[in-house]
Amino acid sequence: MPISLVTGGAGFIGSHVAEVLIAQSHKVIVLDDLSGGSLMNVPSKAVFVKGSITDPVLLAQVFDKYKIDYIYHLAAYAAEGLSHFIKRFNYQNNLIGSVNLINEAVKHEIKCFVFTSSIAVYGGQTPPMTEEMNPQPEDPYGIAKFAVEQELKVSKEMFGLDYVIFRPHNVYGERQNISDKYRNVIGIFMNQLMKGESLSVFGDGGQTRAFSYVSDMALVIAAAVENKAMYGEVFNIGADDACSVKTLAELVMQVMGVHGKINHLEERNEVQHAFASHGKLCEIVGAYQQTPLRDGLMKMAEWAKSSNHLPSKKFELLEISKKLPPFWK
Amino acid sequence: MPISLVTGGAGFIGSHVAEVLIAQSHKVIVLDDLSGGSLMNVPSKAVFVKGSITDPVLLAQVFDKYKIDYIYHLAAYAAEGLSHFIKRFNYQNNLIGSVNLINEAVKHEIKCFVFTSSIAVYGGQTPPMTEEMNPQPEDPYGIAKFAVEQELKVSKEMFGLDYVIFRPHNVYGERQNISDKYRNVIGIFMNQLMKGESLSVFGDGGQTRAFSYVSDMALVIAAAVENKAMYGEVFNIGADDACSVKTLAELVMQVMGVHGKINHLEERNEVQHAFASHGKLCEIVGAYQQTPLRDGLMKMAEWAKSSNHLPSKKFELLEISKKLPPFWK
Repeated sequence: MPISLVTGGAGFIGSHVAEVLIAQSHKVIVLDDLSGGSLMNVPSKAVFVKGSITDPVLLAQVFDKYKIDYIYHLAAYAAEGLSHFIKRFNYQNNLIGSVNLINEAVKHEIKCFVFTSSIAVYGGQTPPMTEEMNPQPEDPYGIAKFAVEQELKVSKEMFGLDYVIFRPHNVYGERQNISDKYRNVIGIFMNQLMKGESLSVFGDGGQTRAFSYVSDMALVIAAAVENKAMYGEVFNIGADDACSVKTLAELVMQVMGVHGKINHLEERNEVQHAFASHGKLCEIVGAYQQTPLRDGLMKMAEWAKSSNHLPSKKFELLEISKKLPPFWK
Repeated sequence: MPISLVTGGAGFIGSHVAEVLIAQSHKVIVLDDLSGGSLMNVPSKAVFVKGSITDPVLLAQVFDKYKIDYIYHLAAYAAEGLSHFIKRFNYQNNLIGSVNLINEAVKHEIKCFVFTSSIAVYGGQTPPMTEEMNPQPEDPYGIAKFAVEQELKVSKEMFGLDYVIFRPHNVYGERQNISDKYRNVIGIFMNQLMKGESLSVFGDGGQTRAFSYVSDMALVIAAAVENKAMYGEVFNIGADDACSVKTLAELVMQVMGVHGKINHLEERNEVQHAFASHGKLCEIVGAYQQTPLRDGLMKMAEWAKSSNHLPSKKFELLEISKKLPPFWK
């Protein structure tokens, strides 16, 4: 029975990956500091360790206690837009935390390190993003993700650490933290509709994203360690079809059965059109499941309406307040 | 009178930059944790603050106390080869420390942030390295330097922070820490000769570097803030002429007046031929002073023989010991 560590396994994508791994008979250790996730998300068959990847002493204990075969590293503070204002926090969590894990992976000679990077590494290049492009991240979040990708590469060359890197984009679905007002437009929209608020759209809502259903992605991520052809490679992953934020707002109102208003906020510093080619992934794993947006939204809406959600948290540790969008103040 | 903060100003390049700035009537604040540098290196007219760039509270105090116009950020732990084995320490000092400074620079709207990156960002690409090449760092040290470069770029775009980036290479000269056995081949050679030891050469000594005299570089770095054409740009800086480590060993023996032996050690994982084009810099600043290698070595040898040197320090905080070259154990 392979033993897999899932960091961020109480979080959104992490809990789905943990679930798939358990269904495939992995023993799963979930490490999560519950800063963004929730114990309710952790599969009951997983061993849960509360703690942060930024704690090297705890990590050493976990790796000493469990003979870990695979690491699925999904823990991150993923508020891309906010990362300009919390630079240190971003690098501490998303880079130093990852480096702590890489240290343990090297020391304990684990079999494969699966890392979820992000489409953010591409920055504002002309889509579709392909893996051949040179990353040009435009925010600290993307810079940190890109640095971890490079770290894995040099750790392979220096120490033989095997890895697979995914660059997911715009993931949505059940168990997403819809109370987090800093990220994930679909969750924000659903939350706003349930509170009777209007939907916040930055600029004219013409910015497009290819929204990707979480279960589709979790299947591919979980299976990566079995496929040696994926080792040492980086793959875009997500849906092919792009949709504007404006159209999305209408779809979300439909699936939630609520007719809300749109509140256009000042345009923010973000990539206008982000979508990705998944040709490289398809060449290796074939056509993978892509749940249509409306279907995925319906499942998520059903979950959102029937679940208790944590109250909205304000981020307390702003390092820079200059140029912070009014919405976040 | 402009006020300049020089981080790492008790260190090697930093102390030379501080000296030049003082000669040009800057008020200079030197911030240094003395982990690699020495109080003896700090120009007497500089204000000295002992502390680390990894301490955001101290940094906030320094920026509150002094109305800083320019930041010359030269503090770093620069043991490139060792960085594989001290990944966390490397990112904490070289990335998080830099990010703390960038936060203060943004908050206090300083006029220009001069950053010394490194030729290490290029990795093993075919020389000569030019600024148009896409960085492909091959070790954590180079990854951290590259991440800081990207940080400056996004901080310019987001907050209007002006900056100039230098990528120096293979700097040598007076006040180099020649007791540091982890870095700087010229210092290591001089130290070994003075102790009657043979000279450690990794592999056959055929690897080439363009060794660059520190005073030449300090003049260009110090003057950068005066030249708006340099703002927002990255420049290679250093000598044009490359020399093999084997030839260097002979030259150092000549200037030190000692006939030593060469001890060939196992080849290590390093870039074979690293030298850089300085055409971009020359286009903007014209031909800059390049002291011939033999002349620079003679000045350094004179200093080395007449100075007291700190005892060799062993790095105590290894995170990974696997694959550590025997020489460093």
